[in-house]
Amino acid sequence: MKPAITYELIHECKQTGARRGVIHTPHGDIQTPIFMPVGTQATVKAMTPEELKEEVKAQIILSNTYHLYLRPGEKIVKEAGGLHEFMRWDRPILTDCGGFQVFSLSDLRKISEEGVEFKSHLDGSRHFFSPEKVMQIEEDLGADIIMSFDECVGYPATYEYTKNSMERTTRWAKRCKEAHKTTEKQALFGIVQGGMFKDLREQSAKDLVELDFPGYAVGGLSVGEPKDMMCDVLAFTTQFLPKDKPRYLMGVGSPDYLLEAVLRGIDMCDCVLPTRIARNGTATTSQGKVVVRNATYERDFSSLDPNCDCYTCKNYTRAYIHHLIKAKEILGARLLTLHNLRFLTRLMEQVRKEIENDNLLTFVKKFYQEYYQEDWKQ
Amino acid sequence: MKPAITYELIHECKQTGARRGVIHTPHGDIQTPIFMPVGTQATVKAMTPEELKEEVKAQIILSNTYHLYLRPGEKIVKEAGGLHEFMRWDRPILTDCGGFQVFSLSDLRKISEEGVEFKSHLDGSRHFFSPEKVMQIEEDLGADIIMSFDECVGYPATYEYTKNSMERTTRWAKRCKEAHKTTEKQALFGIVQGGMFKDLREQSAKDLVELDFPGYAVGGLSVGEPKDMMCDVLAFTTQFLPKDKPRYLMGVGSPDYLLEAVLRGIDMCDCVLPTRIARNGTATTSQGKVVVRNATYERDFSSLDPNCDCYTCKNYTRAYIHHLIKAKEILGARLLTLHNLRFLTRLMEQVRKEIENDNLLTFVKKFYQEYYQEDWKQ
Repeated sequence: MKPAITYELIHECKQTGARRGVIHTPHGDIQTPIFMPVGTQATVKAMTPEELKEEVKAQIILSNTYHLYLRPGEKIVKEAGGLHEFMRWDRPILTDCGGFQVFSLSDLRKISEEGVEFKSHLDGSRHFFSPEKVMQIEEDLGADIIMSFDECVGYPATYEYTKNSMERTTRWAKRCKEAHKTTEKQALFGIVQGGMFKDLREQSAKDLVELDFPGYAVGGLSVGEPKDMMCDVLAFTTQFLPKDKPRYLMGVGSPDYLLEAVLRGIDMCDCVLPTRIARNGTATTSQGKVVVRNATYERDFSSLDPNCDCYTCKNYTRAYIHHLIKAKEILGARLLTLHNLRFLTRLMEQVRKEIENDNLLTFVKKFYQEYYQEDWKQ
Repeated sequence: MKPAITYELIHECKQTGARRGVIHTPHGDIQTPIFMPVGTQATVKAMTPEELKEEVKAQIILSNTYHLYLRPGEKIVKEAGGLHEFMRWDRPILTDCGGFQVFSLSDLRKISEEGVEFKSHLDGSRHFFSPEKVMQIEEDLGADIIMSFDECVGYPATYEYTKNSMERTTRWAKRCKEAHKTTEKQALFGIVQGGMFKDLREQSAKDLVELDFPGYAVGGLSVGEPKDMMCDVLAFTTQFLPKDKPRYLMGVGSPDYLLEAVLRGIDMCDCVLPTRIARNGTATTSQGKVVVRNATYERDFSSLDPNCDCYTCKNYTRAYIHHLIKAKEILGARLLTLHNLRFLTRLMEQVRKEIENDNLLTFVKKFYQEYYQEDWKQ
């Protein structure tokens, strides 16, 4: 049986081992490593599909099962012809499994072996997610890549809690695989958990690889732990993942974390960071972070990022964007969102070239020397 | 001395007397009658200049002196090279005089012969607008058409209050004309006031025509009076305005009011209505008003307006736009704003053709029979 997606490893960087590849999907090829913009509610906030394709040059976007299940409801998306049709995006889509959102509801949810009972953050109504239910929702949504139902354990967590949770996540992954019917159209990824404990990470990875998924995610990282620890656990984990399958690090989107992920063999990343900070008035630029909402940019008639090729940077001044953000104008959010996303896709274009040229380590060192700011994440 | 703008009357509709013309401005020609989208804070909410030109096909936009004076401040706009440069709009711009906003502040303002003292709605700081001050601000902003400082009297108002206010508005118009220096780049319009009293309207119009402005606005209508009264006063007023100058009815933007205005010899209209109702989830369509945020559109997979040529109608379903509006997504506001503006510019394109064909009355009758809804304004 033909799998929904396949991964082709083109080159490994001789300096770092970072992977340059292609993921073949029902909606086209994805050049990796890749950053995936997040379209939580069937829209990448403030963007049209045309802008994502022509300006951002996004190859794949992510959308959220939890949010779409609650609103508009997966049945309406299915009636519309699936998520691609509904939101008019004809390139690949990945849906998460809702686990992260459901478990984030803290006092609004109750976990059992069967699944998770939770209350909607919208209206307090009661719902139940099991691995089987999540598969039904993700199949109705119709993304190219779908995620198995997992628990994302926070930091810090005890060994015992993490072990029990990881083992249940593996059992749920097995149930997802058994429930998943549309294997020729949608590729189901397993999610490696295990917190900051290496033996648990190893166990999780090996058990999931045994189940033979078409791709693997690393979950439960960048959840508050120190950066060194994230890098260490990630590097340790990826060694157990097969070379012929794509690897996705969930929820990472600052420039430095993206680079660290790629250095450790990751192919795909996603994060709401670039779109969220845009709406707050912050830009990521080749000159570092620019908090354009600050008064210092009131009379700055230069472009946001002189080295950027995006619509925003080619056309507008910092002073104008500053004004739009201060005045809470939608165009301000649009211009910054477009730029921040393009900044990351350009970074990844560069990263792909550096891997091909066996030069990624040199590039990353230069990045830290010339660019990196401690307070990047806000 | 060459005036900043000139008006060319091309044709008068034999059925109605409605005017088909061209206004020549420093930033290009405007085919009239015309609807002008409002860009209150140096941006037509949610739109880029490219969208306004290519999709909406807007020929001129309006911006607000009061808002730009307070934020970012007219001096910053001037430093940017003027409003056209600041917001990257290379077609004509009209700025109002701030009178409407300042007088709307009710208990925050104090009127004298010299001008109006008011408190900012943003931070409560004190400011003073005189005719001379308003001219300085509008000259710094650099629009092609600027308005003289007036008081817009509400409805109802006493004869005495309206008379005193109208006479002061005329004195202020004279002071504006004397203070206005950039006459070759910017055309200053006088604003006819006089409330619902015909003798005051006649007096106001005649006094302003005596002052010989390059264009005239009719203010103080559509301020709460019955529609019949608006139509009656408007028709009475326009007879006193010269045929070789453009006529602008301020603050009118519902389809039926636009038609009524054109029937009575008006060339230009503006209103925030189409952009404001868009953000609330309402569309104006060839099938009447569509409150797309209502649950009835949850599963409506047809286009917003099957007869519309805009990006929104060519690409998206009502169900998707409904979802975006319910989820408070920026894209929802974008799609509806674009459509609502295009709906009015298309209506005016049609109106221009009907005038040329001496058929406007027939068209308007058909409009009321097939289309009009009492509750249009919301």
